[in-house]
Amino acid sequence: MALEIRETPAVVDRLIAEGWAAARLAAAAIVDSRPTWVSIAGRGTSDHAAVYARYLLEITLGVPVGLAAPSVTTVYRAGIDWSGGLVLGISQSGQSPDVVAVVERARSGGALTVAVTNDPGSPLAEAAEWVLECHAAPERSVAATKTYVAELVVLAQLAAAARPGSELFVGLRQLPASLDTAIRHSAHWLSEGTLVEAVAGAQRTVVYARGYNLATALEIALKLQETGGVSAHGYSAADLEHGPIVLASSGVPALGIRSLGEAGRRVDSVTDRIVRQGGQTWMIGVDDPALEMPAGDLAKVRSLLLPSTLPEALTPVVLAIPGQLLAEAVAIRRGLDPDAPAGLSKITMTR
Amino acid sequence: MALEIRETPAVVDRLIAEGWAAARLAAAAIVDSRPTWVSIAGRGTSDHAAVYARYLLEITLGVPVGLAAPSVTTVYRAGIDWSGGLVLGISQSGQSPDVVAVVERARSGGALTVAVTNDPGSPLAEAAEWVLECHAAPERSVAATKTYVAELVVLAQLAAAARPGSELFVGLRQLPASLDTAIRHSAHWLSEGTLVEAVAGAQRTVVYARGYNLATALEIALKLQETGGVSAHGYSAADLEHGPIVLASSGVPALGIRSLGEAGRRVDSVTDRIVRQGGQTWMIGVDDPALEMPAGDLAKVRSLLLPSTLPEALTPVVLAIPGQLLAEAVAIRRGLDPDAPAGLSKITMTR
Repeated sequence: MALEIRETPAVVDRLIAEGWAAARLAAAAIVDSRPTWVSIAGRGTSDHAAVYARYLLEITLGVPVGLAAPSVTTVYRAGIDWSGGLVLGISQSGQSPDVVAVVERARSGGALTVAVTNDPGSPLAEAAEWVLECHAAPERSVAATKTYVAELVVLAQLAAAARPGSELFVGLRQLPASLDTAIRHSAHWLSEGTLVEAVAGAQRTVVYARGYNLATALEIALKLQETGGVSAHGYSAADLEHGPIVLASSGVPALGIRSLGEAGRRVDSVTDRIVRQGGQTWMIGVDDPALEMPAGDLAKVRSLLLPSTLPEALTPVVLAIPGQLLAEAVAIRRGLDPDAPAGLSKITMTR
Repeated sequence: MALEIRETPAVVDRLIAEGWAAARLAAAAIVDSRPTWVSIAGRGTSDHAAVYARYLLEITLGVPVGLAAPSVTTVYRAGIDWSGGLVLGISQSGQSPDVVAVVERARSGGALTVAVTNDPGSPLAEAAEWVLECHAAPERSVAATKTYVAELVVLAQLAAAARPGSELFVGLRQLPASLDTAIRHSAHWLSEGTLVEAVAGAQRTVVYARGYNLATALEIALKLQETGGVSAHGYSAADLEHGPIVLASSGVPALGIRSLGEAGRRVDSVTDRIVRQGGQTWMIGVDDPALEMPAGDLAKVRSLLLPSTLPEALTPVVLAIPGQLLAEAVAIRRGLDPDAPAGLSKITMTR
């Protein structure tokens, strides 16, 4: 797992070189067909890439985007009018039968369909009209790390290609270097800090974010669950305030994912509330010159703020890294094998 | 909280009498305008009513339905082409500024808008073109119980009214009696059984379901968190299999929500897997004559199967009850006040 996390900058470098052609073709098809809505299907880690795509595509394309509920198709066999829309299926292995079923039905029902997968020979790639490869080479560790980051980058390329002049273009070119920096800073911060110890020893952990990085919070929580065996909860900072914030009390490490601008401010306000109610908090984010430095109680929160000039829409790509390294370190600290979590297999066949 | 849960049959009885007129008008407007997609906004408990509506409306209307991400509007201020769609806002208080903002923007952008709220004088009711009241009278307990059930019933009325001849009509009339039965059976089962003790004493709990009752699993987990102070995780049974199932090991009570037919079978298969990996499991569901009785290891799972002749689409209405009573009993068992969980208020103003 550690090795594969460290392969990420090279994977993304290759992907950025090799992925553009396919992204441009799919984006041109999307722009031509002017979908009036978008629906995205994924399971597990790929569902978190779908959460990222949900924000990215809604903001880029300016049409409503939702996450598909495959059960409607596979359990209830309901007929849906798919015409006029865009349906994305995301799966590293391209094997998940329910994701494949949604894409097949949507395509035969008249939707434009795009697959994001690490296996261009998979059933998902077969099912979709357009295929965007992750170019991540085989992943041997059960926990998806480099393939998750690659999925995000593929989706960002698609969004960039659909919007000429997008700030995503410049940001995408910076990604390999930014990922390299993220790995070095994160490993150093985790090794010197208290977060690994706190999460490994706690009965539960709360991870929260807002906007683009909701995907990051959900993915870090999942990695902590499946690799670290920790009872981790991932939340939108807004949903956290509607109830579960009561969980973030003393003895429950809370980890805020603080991105740029307005989303960063909303996360800061929740972090502030947790500090005031006596919780133990940490922050992982990017250093935003435009965002006030944490002041008052917030200044006391232990933070990893990665140097970055990326647009906010690309921060989930680098902020996944400290979370993945955290999960790996927590697993080791708890005497678990991060490469082979008990009871999990690499490909899960849900229908 | 216990009193308000026990008011539910009367609330639903009144709602079914008084809610039809508004549901019919809104449904006629929906049928007339033939939306090509639906987006639903809610926070906290109302977000779980939105998850229910997501399945119900996608299956009833036959168009893609997604959950809105209010941040796209309130944090990123992105322009979205709302024309041709239907946007539902769900909020008991009708106060949540981000849900109100989505409905306002969608309405001015050309979407058909519907509010589901317990307060017809609220900003949400003001913002939407059509208003469906919950008729649940004021709720004094912080935890939403009768208003959650009322939201589900309002949504079911809307779906029924949009589809003449729907099996929902007959089912809706049976609801007050079914809810009454659910309260009696659940209270008895919980008082005689081991589930309250197990959940109150455990470090974490997993609740899972598939399809319509995904909402039930998420809502029971949230109630256990905010009222019982328990680290409860709610999952789609399919997403559980993609990783977090490793959490459901010995010492972690797992609660499967088993509805009818195919969805019930998928939940049974996950329950079976948890039993085989040595987990402690319970089932809450409805007695489905068409579904094989649990056999083999599954027969040993302690189960509450409510007598019911409701269509599956209405089972989340009754299956919420044992979960609410469980959360209340767990809070009391843990020495907490279920009516006033620490750190929570009735109305949360997220933006």
